[in-house]
Amino acid sequence: MKSQFLPVLAIDLGGTKIRTALISNKGKIMAKEYSLTLASEGLEAMMGRMLSGIDRLLSLKNLAPFQLHGMSIAAAGAIDSEKGLVTSSPNLPGWHDVPVRDIVRSKYKVDPFLINDASAAALGEHEFGAGKGVNNLIYLTVGTGIGGGIIIDGKLYCGVSGSAGEIGHMTIDVNGTRCNCGNTGCLEILASGTAMAKEATRRIKQGEGSSLTKIVEGKIENITAETVEFAARGGDYLALEVISKAATYLGVGMVNLANIFNPEMIIVGGGVAKMGELLLEPARRVVQERAFKLPAKAVRIVPAQLGDDSGLVGAAVFAFQQKI
Amino acid sequence: MKSQFLPVLAIDLGGTKIRTALISNKGKIMAKEYSLTLASEGLEAMMGRMLSGIDRLLSLKNLAPFQLHGMSIAAAGAIDSEKGLVTSSPNLPGWHDVPVRDIVRSKYKVDPFLINDASAAALGEHEFGAGKGVNNLIYLTVGTGIGGGIIIDGKLYCGVSGSAGEIGHMTIDVNGTRCNCGNTGCLEILASGTAMAKEATRRIKQGEGSSLTKIVEGKIENITAETVEFAARGGDYLALEVISKAATYLGVGMVNLANIFNPEMIIVGGGVAKMGELLLEPARRVVQERAFKLPAKAVRIVPAQLGDDSGLVGAAVFAFQQKI
Repeated sequence: MKSQFLPVLAIDLGGTKIRTALISNKGKIMAKEYSLTLASEGLEAMMGRMLSGIDRLLSLKNLAPFQLHGMSIAAAGAIDSEKGLVTSSPNLPGWHDVPVRDIVRSKYKVDPFLINDASAAALGEHEFGAGKGVNNLIYLTVGTGIGGGIIIDGKLYCGVSGSAGEIGHMTIDVNGTRCNCGNTGCLEILASGTAMAKEATRRIKQGEGSSLTKIVEGKIENITAETVEFAARGGDYLALEVISKAATYLGVGMVNLANIFNPEMIIVGGGVAKMGELLLEPARRVVQERAFKLPAKAVRIVPAQLGDDSGLVGAAVFAFQQKI
Repeated sequence: MKSQFLPVLAIDLGGTKIRTALISNKGKIMAKEYSLTLASEGLEAMMGRMLSGIDRLLSLKNLAPFQLHGMSIAAAGAIDSEKGLVTSSPNLPGWHDVPVRDIVRSKYKVDPFLINDASAAALGEHEFGAGKGVNNLIYLTVGTGIGGGIIIDGKLYCGVSGSAGEIGHMTIDVNGTRCNCGNTGCLEILASGTAMAKEATRRIKQGEGSSLTKIVEGKIENITAETVEFAARGGDYLALEVISKAATYLGVGMVNLANIFNPEMIIVGGGVAKMGELLLEPARRVVQERAFKLPAKAVRIVPAQLGDDSGLVGAAVFAFQQKI
């Protein structure tokens, strides 16, 4: 059995960045670095950048792979943990059955663990973040898309094929538009950062006025959730409305989670969650108005505490929890 | 500790019937009887009928309360198990904080267990019905309303305040009509037996032809899910469409459950589930079309096996699982 006192080398394989870190069993980040994902440059280049990142981190701390508790990869996509594949990933276009485990093993003679990034973030927040000591919680990541992770009885709930937690792909508008996933009216296409940017763009194209047009210097195709937030913080009416609408949808998703899971806590992380109360306040109000009394009273809806590191930290937690 | 070889006296307190049974730890029903609920006659009369039912069953088998492993009540409503109350019940109008436990205790000097009826049915089906040996499953009861029970890691999942499993009150049509629960576009108002009867009635009132009109002898206010089923089995187009539409909504609810829980099985019980494949076939198709591949492939959608007894049997299972 590997010592719990050796660090885990954790990798967060995201749509924008590949982040690597050495993390202790107390969740402490001992070293960290990143490179850009640049998925458009192709799979091989991207895997090369991941391996270089691992190398740099190992040499920085003068460590050999056998001096690690293990390696652990959190990836934005559906994981086949048995075969060690990322089977598909909405934010890593062109990824189909990528043998990430084999790629790492062939270089370092180490079998890395593989976990979905939202599941990892749920674990990270449960062990060392907002959910410390909370036995039943749902973690929601709101960014380009919406993902989720479920902690039940203090453990990550993965389902029978390891794919549980796809909370962003819950239909809440059965007559709504088609989602990329093939389903209809998913929470993700109504409440994600992408949804906010699209909605703001649509309204401005229809002739509504907004300071956003000036913020993006007339290039409305450059509107993002961040620019919408920036405009909203400056008091822009359209931006405030767009965020409030998305937050209401997010609240409807949370009502479903509250009625089904009766959880102690819903933690909201991911890029868009940086909007903070702008997003959480309306969502909380919807839950109080619409969910059953008992679960509405029980659930605390809070922001994540580990920020961009929740996936990395969670990947490490996942590795420490395995028997090796 | 009470012997596991004594039977449990189980009570199913439903909107239509009060059913009582003596049940062994192998799930065998040794004696069973029922009376009508007649909730409209008031609380006291109804509790009187429940107590008489218990008395008849005890005297039939010549048993005293101390010769039972315990008593266990499954009730259609929200349970406060700490205080022993049925706090509210959609199908038992006028019920608010009814001290069912005290009522039973004061007569028999026995503290009965209390459990929500859909949760009980989930337990019953998991131990002795369609879900035997299945570790992760969702039980859905489709009748007047839609309820649910969740089995995770072989155990009933209750949530932090014991109210988990309100699957019927998941919004799937955010722009839809208001539900009695205060939420909007709930699965229950789109796919329950009540929803089917309402939809058929609405369409006939608007002038559409259907054999249903003849079946209810012109009294279209008498249309129920049962008459809709009867008409559908006779090939009635409108009835078939109404069922197919409700089944599609039910399928959408199951897509959400599949994506979120990635369960091994979804079991469908309750009065309307007697429609069998008429209901399950379209629902299964929707799941295959819209859910993520892994959970769609993994989930088996099957009818309940214990019929009207799943709640009774589950109440007994619940009692046998408690430490007493």
